[in-house]
Amino acid sequence: MNAPIPEHLLPRREQRPVPPALLAALQQHFGDRCSTATAVREQHGRDESTYPMTPPDAVVFCESTADVATAVRLAAAHATPVIAFGTGSSLEGHLLAVHGGLSIDVSRMARLVAVDADDLTVTVQAGVTREQLNSEIRDTGLFFPIDPGANASLGGMAATRASGTNAVRYGTMRENVLALTVVTASGEVIRTGTRARKSAAGYDLTRLFVGSEGTLGIITELTLRLYPLPEAVSAAICHFPDIAAAVRTTIQIIQLGVPIARCELLDANAIRGVNRYAGLALREQPMLLMEFHGSPAGVQEQAETVQDIAREHGGADFEWARTPEERTRLWAARHKAYFAALQMRPGCRSLSTDTCVPISHLAESIDESVREADAAGLPYWVVGHVGDGNFHLSYLLDPNSPEEMATAETLSHKMVQRAIRLQGTCTGEHGIGLHKMGYLVDEAGVGAVEVMKSIKRALDPLNIMNPGKVIAV
Amino acid sequence: MNAPIPEHLLPRREQRPVPPALLAALQQHFGDRCSTATAVREQHGRDESTYPMTPPDAVVFCESTADVATAVRLAAAHATPVIAFGTGSSLEGHLLAVHGGLSIDVSRMARLVAVDADDLTVTVQAGVTREQLNSEIRDTGLFFPIDPGANASLGGMAATRASGTNAVRYGTMRENVLALTVVTASGEVIRTGTRARKSAAGYDLTRLFVGSEGTLGIITELTLRLYPLPEAVSAAICHFPDIAAAVRTTIQIIQLGVPIARCELLDANAIRGVNRYAGLALREQPMLLMEFHGSPAGVQEQAETVQDIAREHGGADFEWARTPEERTRLWAARHKAYFAALQMRPGCRSLSTDTCVPISHLAESIDESVREADAAGLPYWVVGHVGDGNFHLSYLLDPNSPEEMATAETLSHKMVQRAIRLQGTCTGEHGIGLHKMGYLVDEAGVGAVEVMKSIKRALDPLNIMNPGKVIAV
Repeated sequence: MNAPIPEHLLPRREQRPVPPALLAALQQHFGDRCSTATAVREQHGRDESTYPMTPPDAVVFCESTADVATAVRLAAAHATPVIAFGTGSSLEGHLLAVHGGLSIDVSRMARLVAVDADDLTVTVQAGVTREQLNSEIRDTGLFFPIDPGANASLGGMAATRASGTNAVRYGTMRENVLALTVVTASGEVIRTGTRARKSAAGYDLTRLFVGSEGTLGIITELTLRLYPLPEAVSAAICHFPDIAAAVRTTIQIIQLGVPIARCELLDANAIRGVNRYAGLALREQPMLLMEFHGSPAGVQEQAETVQDIAREHGGADFEWARTPEERTRLWAARHKAYFAALQMRPGCRSLSTDTCVPISHLAESIDESVREADAAGLPYWVVGHVGDGNFHLSYLLDPNSPEEMATAETLSHKMVQRAIRLQGTCTGEHGIGLHKMGYLVDEAGVGAVEVMKSIKRALDPLNIMNPGKVIAV
Repeated sequence: MNAPIPEHLLPRREQRPVPPALLAALQQHFGDRCSTATAVREQHGRDESTYPMTPPDAVVFCESTADVATAVRLAAAHATPVIAFGTGSSLEGHLLAVHGGLSIDVSRMARLVAVDADDLTVTVQAGVTREQLNSEIRDTGLFFPIDPGANASLGGMAATRASGTNAVRYGTMRENVLALTVVTASGEVIRTGTRARKSAAGYDLTRLFVGSEGTLGIITELTLRLYPLPEAVSAAICHFPDIAAAVRTTIQIIQLGVPIARCELLDANAIRGVNRYAGLALREQPMLLMEFHGSPAGVQEQAETVQDIAREHGGADFEWARTPEERTRLWAARHKAYFAALQMRPGCRSLSTDTCVPISHLAESIDESVREADAAGLPYWVVGHVGDGNFHLSYLLDPNSPEEMATAETLSHKMVQRAIRLQGTCTGEHGIGLHKMGYLVDEAGVGAVEVMKSIKRALDPLNIMNPGKVIAV
């Protein structure tokens, strides 16, 4: 894999490798939980982005908050970068050791610390994945709704302010993290927030660390909101003559206040991939895949309303997933759209865009992006969390073709500029990482980014927390 | 009014009055919109707390973001404190000019900048009040749900992270502010966030300024989420043998995921006040006042579920507000509980507590607080946003009795310590202001408060933004 990301997008790469004295101290403390093996380093030096692998100098496998604090304290004493690592499923180069340094692997911190079912909260270590969480709390009758597709670690999901298919109803990590344990840049352990549902006590450090991508501190524990498993769940698909009709249907669903739990758009290309990959026979034209949560009567009522709206916009073949198995099959197909798409062009890499706009601008935003992708002749596919105004147009690229990569970047650039012009954002849920640092300035403005830099410098004066990501200080 | 708040709770009061050169510059720029009249200064030197009036040296009436930026830039040049002022309805001494300085009155910034009904967003100037907003958008079929009782300014509500009766369903200002225009401590204008429903772009400055109580910057415009007016609304009251039964009912409502829109507790004392004040004849025992939003069938279903739960816990006299008029009358009574309570003891001042705990600890939290208040012999009343675990036990105090004030502070202290022990917060929605600065340290810990201080110093190096509030730097 040698992805020709334009050089100007890459941060300055002044190297600050792990010095021998630090390595010795780490090895003394962590024993064989501190590794410099090539395979281990390489596994920790990449994510799902198209960036070239950029390994750290060493990896420390932490098993507790105290471990993380020790590792950061030692690193701080040598002004050496630290990068938290969960499952490696981020998409914008978040994990790459562009300045060298230490990867802090929290995947062994995989314990549920406290399940408080009566309060609808759970406290987990940062390495717990969302699937593990939902599996372990199944018998409480509760669930954690945030579902970015990948079986990411909850620490990583908080760090990138992840969301996904359920966000239209349940919000994102922004709304669902109540409290955090964080190791600061000096290796101190702090707690932010409480288990109360709301608070007006001081600066909202919880939400400052959520979405900070490991650049202000390392999240080691999270207290999350849980929700009662809905009494009834139903899923349905509906096909539309074009993307605009599907989007107009979505807009009206939201405007009427239908509490739809999931509202996903798939374009014909995405469906084509899914059909081949999962052996389905869905009609290969734009489709909404929807899910309704509530009481049996409530679900029925929501579905009838949505069916009426869809019909008005030319929606056809409204089809119910009658059984849980059918529903699982449909959502599994949606979740596999990424792998399905990759199969459409063997050996390719996918570059996924992530703009999010006010919903009234969504049709325009998707339409123009699709037109530009068609004109450029690059293979692509579209899925969208359209209830939130967020969609992913992903290009399928030959990793050995600098031309294709450059074309995709040009198209992506146009999409982002359009989203910003339409009062939206360059990233709905993937984060800034390496890839969108320039776009953050375009979107937020120099003044706001200067405020972010002031915060970064205040909380991480040595610039050791995932340096070179989000903002350039 | 001369409230004997214990001296150790008051911040250091090094005075930094408006120097003559600054006053001259302000008067030159703002003309008669810059006032040093005693009556004007006094009106801007108090809030609804029991603190003694502490007027600013001058008041500037701003009419635009540019006005605020000019005033702050001039103040910064003289290292003079600035305190934003909306309607003066805060409760913890937020507005008092404890270091002297300038009050920046934004009440004339009362314009709706953009109503984007299709996107369910509105952008308002900071001085728009919540009642004005809902009145001006009535014909869009949308509403803004956050309702702290007082007809506060939306800028002030954001600055204190306000919530109120609807938060159990719609969230607080934390969840409902999408974007801000902020004047920083140097007088620069920045924008945070976008109109998109979600974003993963950089540090969450929006939520950092929400709840910062004017200590990091002055909010001049806000983009807010709106919601479709529910198709059907119904309200009901239900009486319980004791507070614990009402709270247990609430807990079960939340645990079952009933999307109740409002769930308010009133104790017998609160009802007694309301009966006398509003000429009602409610039974004077603990009561839940509830509201349901949804489709007609959905509302019916929610109400039936809740009725069943209430019955199990000894709830009796479940009574519907059949007409909008009856509903308005009930909620008006709830909103007037504060004034009603004051009438119970002519000449008194109310000291309102504001703890919020995980809901499983709510009954214990209220019960012990009530027992302590009874034992102390102070008159009090209780209302609670119990669906959120938040309640206000308010003491009715003789302002000329230092003993009563000290007793109330002692009781309040016990309540706060109990809330913190129960993994809750010293303030659910009123904020820290002057009054709870010590409690913020107890709750968040020294380490987290040090992080807050670092942020404060980085964004406001001259310490001119509402100095002496939230944290002592």
